[in-house]
Amino acid sequence: MLRIAFVGTGVMGRPMAGHLLTAGYPLVVHNRSPDKAAPLLASGAAWAESPAAAAAGAEVVVTIVGLPEEVREVYLGSEGVVAHAAPGALLVDMSTSRPSLAREIHAAAAARGLAALDAPVSGGDVGARAATLSIMVGGDAEAFEQARPILEVMGRTVVHQGPAGSGQHAKLCNQLAIAGAVIGAMEALVYARGSGLDPETVLASIGAGAAASWTLDNLYPRALAGNFAPGFFVRHFLKDLRIARDEAAAMGLELPGLALAESLYERVVALGGAELGTQALYLALAGEDGLSAGRA
Amino acid sequence: MLRIAFVGTGVMGRPMAGHLLTAGYPLVVHNRSPDKAAPLLASGAAWAESPAAAAAGAEVVVTIVGLPEEVREVYLGSEGVVAHAAPGALLVDMSTSRPSLAREIHAAAAARGLAALDAPVSGGDVGARAATLSIMVGGDAEAFEQARPILEVMGRTVVHQGPAGSGQHAKLCNQLAIAGAVIGAMEALVYARGSGLDPETVLASIGAGAAASWTLDNLYPRALAGNFAPGFFVRHFLKDLRIARDEAAAMGLELPGLALAESLYERVVALGGAELGTQALYLALAGEDGLSAGRA
Repeated sequence: MLRIAFVGTGVMGRPMAGHLLTAGYPLVVHNRSPDKAAPLLASGAAWAESPAAAAAGAEVVVTIVGLPEEVREVYLGSEGVVAHAAPGALLVDMSTSRPSLAREIHAAAAARGLAALDAPVSGGDVGARAATLSIMVGGDAEAFEQARPILEVMGRTVVHQGPAGSGQHAKLCNQLAIAGAVIGAMEALVYARGSGLDPETVLASIGAGAAASWTLDNLYPRALAGNFAPGFFVRHFLKDLRIARDEAAAMGLELPGLALAESLYERVVALGGAELGTQALYLALAGEDGLSAGRA
Repeated sequence: MLRIAFVGTGVMGRPMAGHLLTAGYPLVVHNRSPDKAAPLLASGAAWAESPAAAAAGAEVVVTIVGLPEEVREVYLGSEGVVAHAAPGALLVDMSTSRPSLAREIHAAAAARGLAALDAPVSGGDVGARAATLSIMVGGDAEAFEQARPILEVMGRTVVHQGPAGSGQHAKLCNQLAIAGAVIGAMEALVYARGSGLDPETVLASIGAGAAASWTLDNLYPRALAGNFAPGFFVRHFLKDLRIARDEAAAMGLELPGLALAESLYERVVALGGAELGTQALYLALAGEDGLSAGRA
């Protein structure tokens, strides 16, 4: 089977890499914080000291890191994947990043005879663990077909969205839809509490009609329980919203829901919630009472 | 079987009453525009000239009309249900209305020895036709148990939310969650078009991850196809949002997503879209190009 290098073994990457190991792929892993890779090493993965070292012997390089600057460093840095990948390797960045950066990596890879895909995911930590992720892919059709069997180990829905950068654009659509859904779900929770209803009984009703959503099923219960652990980090989601805002502005689009979500998540960060999960938008609505109300 | 009076045979009421007929309940119907009741009469329902006349011989009175003023007239007017219902009758208002009005009807009914429930629904025209509605019920527990078999003919999820008015409060939670989800879904569509992606392929990805929702499944495809027919009327949804805004203000809650949704739907109305479906929020975002882009 193809030798795979996997860079980035955080909340999302660790279970995703675990599925590749389980499927039998020989795996070399690298992570900025080595301790987060330990469970994978215990399951048979090899360790590499840098993205370059991981990439050197691999036919496929999969990456999922946090910020566009990290994506740039991992791919285009002097110790990066593009400079050190083996001839003919396939590079698959599953981070959520800038469409323009995906195109830049695609071009730099092509100049070295390498194929590159942008393949960000949706489905959260839940989807990563259950291998039910939706994977949105940008890049050449041939590279997509080559990557598909590997992506299908990690996700349930694997769709080619178009040329390089298209996976990132689709992911930004995804984040826009989520941003609205989270605002709506958390305002429903605030209202349920305010009106004296039992928010859990409310969920039994509203989760079963036209308001039904992944967000209601997964994030409303967490906020209700006062569980603001990630899941998906506020600071990462805010990063995505800012990328979407820049891209939308460049297209001349006005997206007021996006602007509202950005301002609410900025408020969450101001409240000290950057490292919480996206359900912490509740705290921006419920104010300082939020944490205590949630834990009551 | 219990004789049922059914008042309000519009987009939602007609299929709901149809399910009661199919289940074998003797049905007397009334609607402000008699022509909309014609299919039910053809299926065996009897016609009544007024809500009072419909209620006179019925053991259960079910109503689903548009606006709180209509609910008030149907129940508390001189030719209304409360004044003319048979002794011991059970009154079930399935309209989305004000919690305070539901409590007022409950009290007026109780003064005449009648039971009254507020039982608004969610699931849209799709859910009404498929009998998969979520029905949120406020009122006395005994009346709820009496109504349950009838409600279960029209819906799949029937939940008692608490005393009179609680069904309406739960429905407003539902509308808040929907408002956010629709903003998010329509901004995703605007962005998908703007970035040059195929919006249908985008839906294949984002409908399968953490952005998944009833709204994406049902309203995004309609907006994408330029189909802005109701479904659920913009003017009715705007009415619900305004009730939620008044209630939230009375509770001292700040709900910026609700405020944004209200302003966007006001823009839809200003564009002439009051009689369109809620997916017409797309037009407020896409501007004057919206209709032509949708139909392109």
